[in-house]
Amino acid sequence: MATQRILDFLATRRPDGPCLVVDLDVVRDNYCAFEKALPDSRIYYAVKANPAPEILRLLAQLGSSFDTASVAEIEMALNAGATADRISYGNTIKKERDIARAYELGIRLFAVDCEEEVEKIARVAPGSRVFCRVLTDGAGAEWPLSRKFGCVPAMAVDVLRHARTLGLDPYGVSFHVGSQQTDLDAWDRALADARGVFGALADEGIVLRMVNMGGGFPTRYLRDVPAAQAYGQAIFSALRKHFGNRIPETIIEPGRGMVGNAGVIKSEVVLISKKADNDNVRWVYLDIGKFGGLAETMDEAIRYPLVTRHDGSETAPCVLAGPTCDSADVMYEKTPYPLPLSLTIGDEVLIEGTGAYTTTYASVAFNGFEPLRSYVI
Amino acid sequence: MATQRILDFLATRRPDGPCLVVDLDVVRDNYCAFEKALPDSRIYYAVKANPAPEILRLLAQLGSSFDTASVAEIEMALNAGATADRISYGNTIKKERDIARAYELGIRLFAVDCEEEVEKIARVAPGSRVFCRVLTDGAGAEWPLSRKFGCVPAMAVDVLRHARTLGLDPYGVSFHVGSQQTDLDAWDRALADARGVFGALADEGIVLRMVNMGGGFPTRYLRDVPAAQAYGQAIFSALRKHFGNRIPETIIEPGRGMVGNAGVIKSEVVLISKKADNDNVRWVYLDIGKFGGLAETMDEAIRYPLVTRHDGSETAPCVLAGPTCDSADVMYEKTPYPLPLSLTIGDEVLIEGTGAYTTTYASVAFNGFEPLRSYVI
Repeated sequence: MATQRILDFLATRRPDGPCLVVDLDVVRDNYCAFEKALPDSRIYYAVKANPAPEILRLLAQLGSSFDTASVAEIEMALNAGATADRISYGNTIKKERDIARAYELGIRLFAVDCEEEVEKIARVAPGSRVFCRVLTDGAGAEWPLSRKFGCVPAMAVDVLRHARTLGLDPYGVSFHVGSQQTDLDAWDRALADARGVFGALADEGIVLRMVNMGGGFPTRYLRDVPAAQAYGQAIFSALRKHFGNRIPETIIEPGRGMVGNAGVIKSEVVLISKKADNDNVRWVYLDIGKFGGLAETMDEAIRYPLVTRHDGSETAPCVLAGPTCDSADVMYEKTPYPLPLSLTIGDEVLIEGTGAYTTTYASVAFNGFEPLRSYVI
Repeated sequence: MATQRILDFLATRRPDGPCLVVDLDVVRDNYCAFEKALPDSRIYYAVKANPAPEILRLLAQLGSSFDTASVAEIEMALNAGATADRISYGNTIKKERDIARAYELGIRLFAVDCEEEVEKIARVAPGSRVFCRVLTDGAGAEWPLSRKFGCVPAMAVDVLRHARTLGLDPYGVSFHVGSQQTDLDAWDRALADARGVFGALADEGIVLRMVNMGGGFPTRYLRDVPAAQAYGQAIFSALRKHFGNRIPETIIEPGRGMVGNAGVIKSEVVLISKKADNDNVRWVYLDIGKFGGLAETMDEAIRYPLVTRHDGSETAPCVLAGPTCDSADVMYEKTPYPLPLSLTIGDEVLIEGTGAYTTTYASVAFNGFEPLRSYVI
């Protein structure tokens, strides 16, 4: 997944220290693949996955809409050339003054998952469209979902009815099947719940028009994942099954699926050592770790492909750790990572599939280390 | 632990958004308590705990030395007024060019835990003093230690012998009993190991002179912890027991114990909701979470005391979560946190004991949220 353009950039620029390089050609390909796979869905890129201005500008030019988590992300999307009608304030947890600021900026589409949030929006963003997030179980996802977002479908009916009562526009339902979701049936189960909310409200004369199917589209790490086309077919079949010939507007919010495989982190081996002479597991320490951008290795959730100049030669299991003085800064220990025996201190290690959820996760200055630098080419 | 000075600052300045306020008077008191409890040990403040310039300047004035994790932290300590002979480069994982830069800056004291690291130091920091870190089991610590740092005592003997062979000064042994360590016997076990390394090398004519007893001194979160005086007595007894009347120089490296209880984070309730009408656990969302500075709530390891204006009134269990669109951004869920039933959206929540390991852990811009601001008063 390290494209020739990325390899050429690294070979020419030789940047010092760890850095992420993102290839915009891959982002463009991903956007087109989503568009082709789900031609009737609007694409709202999840800005939080990677808010680099170059990525946002490209996607704005390609016609993407944007799913944002904060006023700062709304401003980034606007600065990249998106108009306010292409921006969703998709965080269900918003301060009332941030909702007011978003409304000033022209935003009219908001996520909710409880009546309290509906009330804030009714007060400071009158008449806006709201969609209610319903809980899903997240089974099959590699990056786990907690119950943090969403409510049970029965409560979503109450929430959207409350929105109508307060003068808002109850626009639809959203769900999220869990990030890096590889089980295509997950969308079927969630769409059945969404259809239930549509039906219950229709009985009361409230006609919802939109289903926001969230993200969850995986990127390829070590294992193959279904292609966008397979997701498209599975989702379309599920929509047809549950909504018949009255399929509503649909939205998708790819983040990881849009930029994950477009980025590669260049790192360096700082140290290779053992803890005792008779240990058979080596410790390999890189100049980037859990607090420098690889936060998604938490609980060893995401397992990135590593590329070294010794690949193909004999390997042995290694514990992989970061450079900080924090004992929690270990990426892979429970399941050691096979790395070439000939790997040495000073070697470059490319960490693939790191275009999403890396730069902005980096800590601001832990142990005095700079946040992860990023180049978008 | 929110001192009157901190409360007055918050009442007067009314800063918007989450922020940390650190009271330097508490830091001064902590420094003096360590000095009194362990009068024969040199104090090396662990800069990574909180590198705010005001804290470093105060400690430099009080006579503290500094334990640093990177060249950037060395420069911070020098800028705060410490001389190079009061600075230890305590990270066992260093790039050779960073060791060279530290040597240029005058640093002559380095941590190692393997022969490979000794070789780097011998090449670019000739003649320097090195101390070898030995593994401890970390039992009794709240923030867990992995096997990331250190080697078994038998290997430490080889490492320090190798240092002598390469012209370095084998100065001593270090260990770390685990952060927020409340078991006073932990130091006894580690000192027994250190004594073993001293003895083995003495038999070969290599005389070590120093034991670096690391950090681990706890700060008070929800439960009472032994006072510095108790630690001092336990450590002195263990030194006497293992080294008799030939007690070596000793170093301690408090971080959390120096600044943890000096800081309070001011946060705001963004949302309180339920996931279903019949849920009996409420979800309370703050404007700060795991990615905004409270990284040590990972696996619910550190449980901070929370203060609200409703304290003393009836409480009920809550899940406590942060403001980002990341489902992993939940602080306390397995063990819900009792919070007042009368807590409402917009209320201020003070998070106590947050002077250490918060500001620098904050992500640089996850979800568009700013890193944690900090005021040192």
